[in-house]
Amino acid sequence: MKTVGILGGGQLGTMLGTAIADLGARVAFYDPDPEAPALSRFADVTIAKWDDEAALRAFAARCDVVSYEMEHVTVTDALRDLARTTSLRPSLSVLETTQDRVREKQHLRAAGLPHVMFEVAEGGAELRAKLAAFPRPCIVKTTRGGYDGKGQLFIGRDEDLARAMALPEDGTYVLEEALTLQMEASCIVARGPGTETCFPIFENAHRDHVLDVTVVPARVAPSVAAAMERLALATARSLDVHGLLTVEFFLAEPTTELRSPAVVEDGVAILVNELAPRPHNSGHVTRKACTASQFEVLARLLLDLPVNAPALLSSDAYCMGNLLGDVWLAQAAARGHAPTSALDLACLAAFPDVLEVVLYGKNEARAKRKMGHFTCRASRPEDALARARRFREALSGAS
Amino acid sequence: MKTVGILGGGQLGTMLGTAIADLGARVAFYDPDPEAPALSRFADVTIAKWDDEAALRAFAARCDVVSYEMEHVTVTDALRDLARTTSLRPSLSVLETTQDRVREKQHLRAAGLPHVMFEVAEGGAELRAKLAAFPRPCIVKTTRGGYDGKGQLFIGRDEDLARAMALPEDGTYVLEEALTLQMEASCIVARGPGTETCFPIFENAHRDHVLDVTVVPARVAPSVAAAMERLALATARSLDVHGLLTVEFFLAEPTTELRSPAVVEDGVAILVNELAPRPHNSGHVTRKACTASQFEVLARLLLDLPVNAPALLSSDAYCMGNLLGDVWLAQAAARGHAPTSALDLACLAAFPDVLEVVLYGKNEARAKRKMGHFTCRASRPEDALARARRFREALSGAS
Repeated sequence: MKTVGILGGGQLGTMLGTAIADLGARVAFYDPDPEAPALSRFADVTIAKWDDEAALRAFAARCDVVSYEMEHVTVTDALRDLARTTSLRPSLSVLETTQDRVREKQHLRAAGLPHVMFEVAEGGAELRAKLAAFPRPCIVKTTRGGYDGKGQLFIGRDEDLARAMALPEDGTYVLEEALTLQMEASCIVARGPGTETCFPIFENAHRDHVLDVTVVPARVAPSVAAAMERLALATARSLDVHGLLTVEFFLAEPTTELRSPAVVEDGVAILVNELAPRPHNSGHVTRKACTASQFEVLARLLLDLPVNAPALLSSDAYCMGNLLGDVWLAQAAARGHAPTSALDLACLAAFPDVLEVVLYGKNEARAKRKMGHFTCRASRPEDALARARRFREALSGAS
Repeated sequence: MKTVGILGGGQLGTMLGTAIADLGARVAFYDPDPEAPALSRFADVTIAKWDDEAALRAFAARCDVVSYEMEHVTVTDALRDLARTTSLRPSLSVLETTQDRVREKQHLRAAGLPHVMFEVAEGGAELRAKLAAFPRPCIVKTTRGGYDGKGQLFIGRDEDLARAMALPEDGTYVLEEALTLQMEASCIVARGPGTETCFPIFENAHRDHVLDVTVVPARVAPSVAAAMERLALATARSLDVHGLLTVEFFLAEPTTELRSPAVVEDGVAILVNELAPRPHNSGHVTRKACTASQFEVLARLLLDLPVNAPALLSSDAYCMGNLLGDVWLAQAAARGHAPTSALDLACLAAFPDVLEVVLYGKNEARAKRKMGHFTCRASRPEDALARARRFREALSGAS
């Protein structure tokens, strides 16, 4: 019986752990957070810091293969050893490329993949100099830890420049062309020896830079979806991914002002925005919408089992909605009591097409914190989306 | 955050545990087996005998509500206390009725539900006397622990009587009319305050008295399916079930020889065969076939959440096949090596319509031991069934 190690015991890790255990294998978690959701769900959880090299070595010694639920893992000598002696999937090189915004973008550029035009600035002085010459509107981003929109600055008019002046002098920054988006989308690739396939394209909408809803099928022309699938597969191939790679896309209008090297298909400019070498928040929709979930597919890749092309289970449309702590806070406020970690789900009775609600068991509801998700279905994408919004409003309301 | 206790940490219990944890609640297991599958999967598992009253009391004290994955739980004073002080779902009375074949049959008769004609015999002498008068062919069954066909005796010709003579003198026996079956079927009812619904009817086939495959939708006329649903709901109502009740049906020809009180619908005699107040082996098919699985529905009932009527996810047909230890033994024999607990699943590559394979992580493959299951789909029930048989043959073969 194989043991699969998972770095990170949050919601993505625990769902992956369940899929692995469902294939009869052992699962071991490693997480620095003493309140990691995996703790209350799985028997084998190591709580230790990323840079606790002794703990990580002991963990690796017990595992046949190791994966991770997020790319913000500190790369220590112990992790390098782990990658040499145990199988790390995706590889250390994929992890190092995707955990650094600059390296990720440089990889896309070097591989000839469509991406948002960018420049790198080392330190505040270079940032200011490059900002003066960079076409506006643009976005300034810090290079690490900037998920969910943290550490982003929009620079449109001259007044916005003052905010860039306030950035730390010693950072590394990326300037990007700011695009007028038609849509954001994602494609999850599953890749390994003898396997190269992907999930259907998801349409994503964000709110305050955090994923809000994911709709499948995405409302794009078949040719545009096919182009995104080709690009996602090419990106995974360029990194030689063994495991999952989530490729996030921007779809923009191919105007004459667009400077970014895009692939234009059927009047839509397609650009790769970000990469995540792991199960993805948008992929929660696969749990109910697809013939196999992203977790089941990754479990098979980690256990060297065959993977078949995942498809939609029916001709219906599905919408996954995130449940952030804000929903807990709104429900408590509407009912005039202090927020708790519990959420009243009584309104589910009025939503027979909500196929699942998953709550991650986090101890405290905070604004913007991902606390759970749900998935509903309808015959058309716009109806699934409208239903999801109504359900979340009902959850947030007085009852 | 609520804690749900589950008596029994086998495959049904662990799948239920996952569904409960997915709703943000804590899960605690209790199982006498020091190798219970739940041990390697969940953090909170008590290993103690059913009659260890101190351990059961300590377990109950930590739980807000308790359910069970099988009805063969010893009813001790501690369990009676648990049922009084903690919420036991389904109730102690349901458990006591369904864990005893005689009480179960007497309940069906008293409630006016269709059932297989039977007589009870106390001890060997009464059994022999009643056998002489009972119409043949008939079946002699022991009254407890007789699941999966253990403890059943078919009495057709006079020669078969000798085997009944060899039964222990002090047992309690049930004589039943032996029917010529057209089909076996099951219906899982979900019931609680304000909830009374059921899953679609499943068609089941057994092999050596062990469930072999489950197909949905069942190949019966809509009026026959509707009659079974009505009968299943009436049965759950008659027991006042809070939780799940699986009702197993016999479908027989309504010949003039039939003595059992059946409900005849559209030329089919419908009889209730057995009851199980819990998730059921046949219900594994719901994991991939239905808008909610049997585990998700029971989790909601245990957490006082609304349950909507479960339906098929698509117009496809689905077939769930059990993977008994025999498959492991056959695969090892075909390859000329000793059996192990591992199963080579490489042939999955040729079966893109196998939507899931679940292995229960049991340490030793033994003949007839339930080690896992799989679910495949096709456009028609007969095709799903044929595909399931081909997949299992491929698993059993040389590769």
